[in-house]
Amino acid sequence: MPKTTPESCMARALKLARRGLYTTDPNPRVGCVLVKGGRIVGEGWHVRAGEPHAEIHALRAAGEAARGATAYVTLEPCAHHGRTGPCAEALIEAGVARVVAAMSDPNPEVSGRGLTLLREAGAAVELGLLESEARALNPGFIARMSRGRPFVRLKMAMSLDARTAMASGESQWITGPAARREVQRLRARSSAVMTGVESAIFDNSRLTVRADQLGIEGEQGEAIAARQPLRVIVDTRLRLPLAAACLSEPGRTLIVACSQDAERRAALEAAGAEVLIMPSGRDGRVDLAALLDHLAAHEACNEVLLETGATLAGAMLDAELIDEMQLFVAATLLGGEARPLFAIPGLERMAQQRPLLIDDIRAVGHDWRIIARPQRGV
Amino acid sequence: MPKTTPESCMARALKLARRGLYTTDPNPRVGCVLVKGGRIVGEGWHVRAGEPHAEIHALRAAGEAARGATAYVTLEPCAHHGRTGPCAEALIEAGVARVVAAMSDPNPEVSGRGLTLLREAGAAVELGLLESEARALNPGFIARMSRGRPFVRLKMAMSLDARTAMASGESQWITGPAARREVQRLRARSSAVMTGVESAIFDNSRLTVRADQLGIEGEQGEAIAARQPLRVIVDTRLRLPLAAACLSEPGRTLIVACSQDAERRAALEAAGAEVLIMPSGRDGRVDLAALLDHLAAHEACNEVLLETGATLAGAMLDAELIDEMQLFVAATLLGGEARPLFAIPGLERMAQQRPLLIDDIRAVGHDWRIIARPQRGV
Repeated sequence: MPKTTPESCMARALKLARRGLYTTDPNPRVGCVLVKGGRIVGEGWHVRAGEPHAEIHALRAAGEAARGATAYVTLEPCAHHGRTGPCAEALIEAGVARVVAAMSDPNPEVSGRGLTLLREAGAAVELGLLESEARALNPGFIARMSRGRPFVRLKMAMSLDARTAMASGESQWITGPAARREVQRLRARSSAVMTGVESAIFDNSRLTVRADQLGIEGEQGEAIAARQPLRVIVDTRLRLPLAAACLSEPGRTLIVACSQDAERRAALEAAGAEVLIMPSGRDGRVDLAALLDHLAAHEACNEVLLETGATLAGAMLDAELIDEMQLFVAATLLGGEARPLFAIPGLERMAQQRPLLIDDIRAVGHDWRIIARPQRGV
Repeated sequence: MPKTTPESCMARALKLARRGLYTTDPNPRVGCVLVKGGRIVGEGWHVRAGEPHAEIHALRAAGEAARGATAYVTLEPCAHHGRTGPCAEALIEAGVARVVAAMSDPNPEVSGRGLTLLREAGAAVELGLLESEARALNPGFIARMSRGRPFVRLKMAMSLDARTAMASGESQWITGPAARREVQRLRARSSAVMTGVESAIFDNSRLTVRADQLGIEGEQGEAIAARQPLRVIVDTRLRLPLAAACLSEPGRTLIVACSQDAERRAALEAAGAEVLIMPSGRDGRVDLAALLDHLAAHEACNEVLLETGATLAGAMLDAELIDEMQLFVAATLLGGEARPLFAIPGLERMAQQRPLLIDDIRAVGHDWRIIARPQRGV
């Protein structure tokens, strides 16, 4: 067995953490590796909220070998008594000599406490190894903890001339099965899937994770689909049809409205929806920033997947609420009459353009995926 | 010196041929390598129409060493007495023992004659080594010779939401200097640059090759810019302003119209343009297929670079006259009111979409270039 290095140990911990990509929500994805004498003596990852943290799994696997070991953990061990005991204490009790954390806890109220506990108990402590990789694992958890708002990822399927549907609304299917599988996976890792009522009406999308469409085999796929992301429908005037497909799917559907129509609300609730009445923004529509604050504070939403049309996508972009966009591009043209990507009212001069940073372009089956971020403050 | 292989010799000949990329028009780009005893004894490429062909340069370089050598040539040696003598005869006279040609002459009337001449004179002859690479060097010459029509390359600069200009027409600059340099090089390799009168009015583009913007140093850049591609403006009703920038640039401007307005025609001719009156197509506009036929037959156009807006681009696409598109994509959004890529009237259902084949996507400075081809007959 080749000798371990600090980087290889942390990389292993990150790899373990990734196994929780679809299941830890609303908790972060975390991995832990215990090393002694250059050998891994225990490892673990957080699987599911309510179950033990990564460190506890690793300590159990190591048993007595944990004494004097170094713990590599992708996130600062917790110091609080939650559903499980504090991991910092567990590491101390097991006699771990040194703790290397990739990043500190992003919750400003507890950040650093776990490491302080460990340091006070005599353990050596290091922070920051492969930090950017660790941060990339949990963009939503970090966003919710540090700014009280989820990480919003916009997904769109489009033609090369950036059209998402024909003028009639017809859009099935612009992209192929490989791209659609990736969208299923994006849903599966998200706390919520958000759309506008127009899209909900036109596409009558179920907005669910389907075990057989994840491309993840057998029981694991079933286990992932057992947790359905919250479906959030921005529906200012409560126009969603009672027969909308998403209302009869497993999981919750939250309709967010400004309407005071009690009868309509009761009918939607009877059809299976939850209805949240929000104050309207300046334009008379749902205040989108306030909605995201709500989703973080009351629904513990980490990652929100926005799957919608040009109007809501444009409004979210205009409000600077989009953190990342994943554009699935099919090698086809739909023409200038088809539906655009973003409606951005008032964008009339080149000086008002919205610059992006492109992080990645690569093939997904016969289609292409572009991952980009709005460039803020330019 | 490492031993040559047939492939390495032909690859060298292709590399030499590429040196003529910007200068051989209307002739093809051709390279030739003479090899004896595993050593290159002479090489050459065609530089400019009216000057010697690649084979002649290589034979001169080899001198007596050509006797018994193998000639690797990227295109079948010519058998006709043009401005220079037939290369097949020159190879025979020099005593070349074997000729390997990457591809046969694409002109169906003379194809195979050069190789037949050589074979009859006792030389060994082979055909087809690295043929697809050789064909890629001369898409325009091959198109003109084999189908009597140029190779049409559409270039567009667009935002990620596929907009080429603001609604007002403002478009400078969507893409950055690296992309604009590539466009200059596309112009430099083309026989003609074609645009619609709307674009010519809005952008008032000069449509010229500028030596200082090619990114090719010194005298070579000057030599390239000395040959300006023919500027072709599709202007059904002779609306081009007499003060249009392109009319006072070096090189020729050809206005293609259906109008019989003799006074307007005379004024444009006095302003420096040539005017071609064409019969109109079914839609009352210039018959685009007939125009391309004209450009091949009377202007010896190999590659035509189409730089235009959504209307003419859509009409060319609809008429299946576009062979390749190069889309320069800037990482920015211009919004749903900005100008679209293609106007394709009547495209209303997904079943009517226009599928493409994407050949390449890669970064060009801060922008991206997508090279795609319309998928015909699907």
